[in-house]
Amino acid sequence: MLLNTINEVRAEVKKWRAEGLKVGLVPTMGALHEGHLSLIKRAKTECDKVVVSVFVNPIQFGPSEDFDKYPRTLDEDMKLCDGEGVDIVFAPTPKEMYGDCRLSNDCLTYVCPPFFFVDKLCGKSRVGHFDGVCTVVMKLFNIVQPDCAFFGQKDAQQVIIIKKMVRDLNIPVEVIQCPIVRENSGLALSSRNKYLSDEGKKDALVLSQILNNIKACYKKGVTDIEALKETAYSYLTEKHDLEYLEIYNKNTLEEEMDANDNSIALIACKVEGVRLIDNIYFSEV
Amino acid sequence: MLLNTINEVRAEVKKWRAEGLKVGLVPTMGALHEGHLSLIKRAKTECDKVVVSVFVNPIQFGPSEDFDKYPRTLDEDMKLCDGEGVDIVFAPTPKEMYGDCRLSNDCLTYVCPPFFFVDKLCGKSRVGHFDGVCTVVMKLFNIVQPDCAFFGQKDAQQVIIIKKMVRDLNIPVEVIQCPIVRENSGLALSSRNKYLSDEGKKDALVLSQILNNIKACYKKGVTDIEALKETAYSYLTEKHDLEYLEIYNKNTLEEEMDANDNSIALIACKVEGVRLIDNIYFSEV
Repeated sequence: MLLNTINEVRAEVKKWRAEGLKVGLVPTMGALHEGHLSLIKRAKTECDKVVVSVFVNPIQFGPSEDFDKYPRTLDEDMKLCDGEGVDIVFAPTPKEMYGDCRLSNDCLTYVCPPFFFVDKLCGKSRVGHFDGVCTVVMKLFNIVQPDCAFFGQKDAQQVIIIKKMVRDLNIPVEVIQCPIVRENSGLALSSRNKYLSDEGKKDALVLSQILNNIKACYKKGVTDIEALKETAYSYLTEKHDLEYLEIYNKNTLEEEMDANDNSIALIACKVEGVRLIDNIYFSEV
Repeated sequence: MLLNTINEVRAEVKKWRAEGLKVGLVPTMGALHEGHLSLIKRAKTECDKVVVSVFVNPIQFGPSEDFDKYPRTLDEDMKLCDGEGVDIVFAPTPKEMYGDCRLSNDCLTYVCPPFFFVDKLCGKSRVGHFDGVCTVVMKLFNIVQPDCAFFGQKDAQQVIIIKKMVRDLNIPVEVIQCPIVRENSGLALSSRNKYLSDEGKKDALVLSQILNNIKACYKKGVTDIEALKETAYSYLTEKHDLEYLEIYNKNTLEEEMDANDNSIALIACKVEGVRLIDNIYFSEV
């Protein structure tokens, strides 16, 4: 069922709640791919009812970012959701979500994650991005009031920040993190892959290759963080505009002395002007 | 019933919810007086069950403010709450609310109200105060999940900001605003009145006198904002350290060309080093 207004969603979820049903939320920006579908499938196994939100959230895009050209494919998304047995697709307009408020921290209440978690990785180049993410996720949580919400490990910094928000603000929602889905080539699925040419997709394989190699080196006994990071350079060509490659603690995003089983390697790199991210855990435990 | 932990409160409220009972929350910092009791009485009439939180919230005090000496009178507060038939008094420790997190926006997720509402009145001298207020109120909302929450008009800027937060973040709580309670002298009740000597309490009457006079002048036809504000100076002596006196729209805190029935006059003034605030609506509609 496609719903566009907050009141309709609330009315529907209220009925479910009265029946004691368990509600799951999968927040998305649409342009759904197998990565999103893996979240939806997981939600279907964990919950009685599943809401998928499809909302390209203006306040998480910077002024020079791709808000306008971000892929919007609602008809396709609806078909995919129907195929998975999604109960509600919630696709509000920006006006439904933000009213006539000017979208700035001069006029709108924001949820602001801690600087320590934001001032690195994607947060460093995407100033204000995670304020926008936390604010819209908080709004969706308050609108749907789900028992569980499902996020992909692909956006690793985002999940860590949302888990932190949930703890810090005592939000009564369980955050469930799902693994990255990849093409057979190793390329992590992303709605932004649509921007790439065939050749660009080949060049983009370098991200997962670098991460796999770092993990392989760690498994062979290399724990020096700088040494692990330096292994990346043999993969990079003039086609790759590396933004960051870091190895941090996977829960706290702290720099540690040496790599260990709690480490995560994270990379962001532009290919054909398209900003791609990927990450890998050093241990799957 | 006195409860100190988040889990205990949640367990108790969950039972009520299963019975379909309506839950009210009265957030306080304790040192309860008739002003708080008026909120509790109102909550008792509107709701089946009433939770009063008593928590002197460290993150809403500035470094040079009175966090350490703020009155803490939990035994007295408990007696007053019992007398009103309060169902739960929730009195957590700072550690229960914030864990071992350092209390700064480097380490903690904050809810940040818009600059426009914050960068004036009390927010101007109390930098970060309303971030602290919104953050703790959001936490209490998420812990108790009340249907309604009760706030006093005494802290006018606070209620306006909380209502804005509720709208902006789609929080499923109804905010109910209750009138200021005053001593017969006209002095607005405040936990900080305890800091005043008998003489100081007399000097403090000037706040309500100034506000009453401004409203009287408005009722006589004066709508020029500067003219209304200037009527205050005849009341002020060297005992009064005026921080602000402003006339704004009572809902938006905007400056308007002329005073009107939607205006509110707000004053902050130190007496004997004690910072006191008061406000008055130009029309009770």
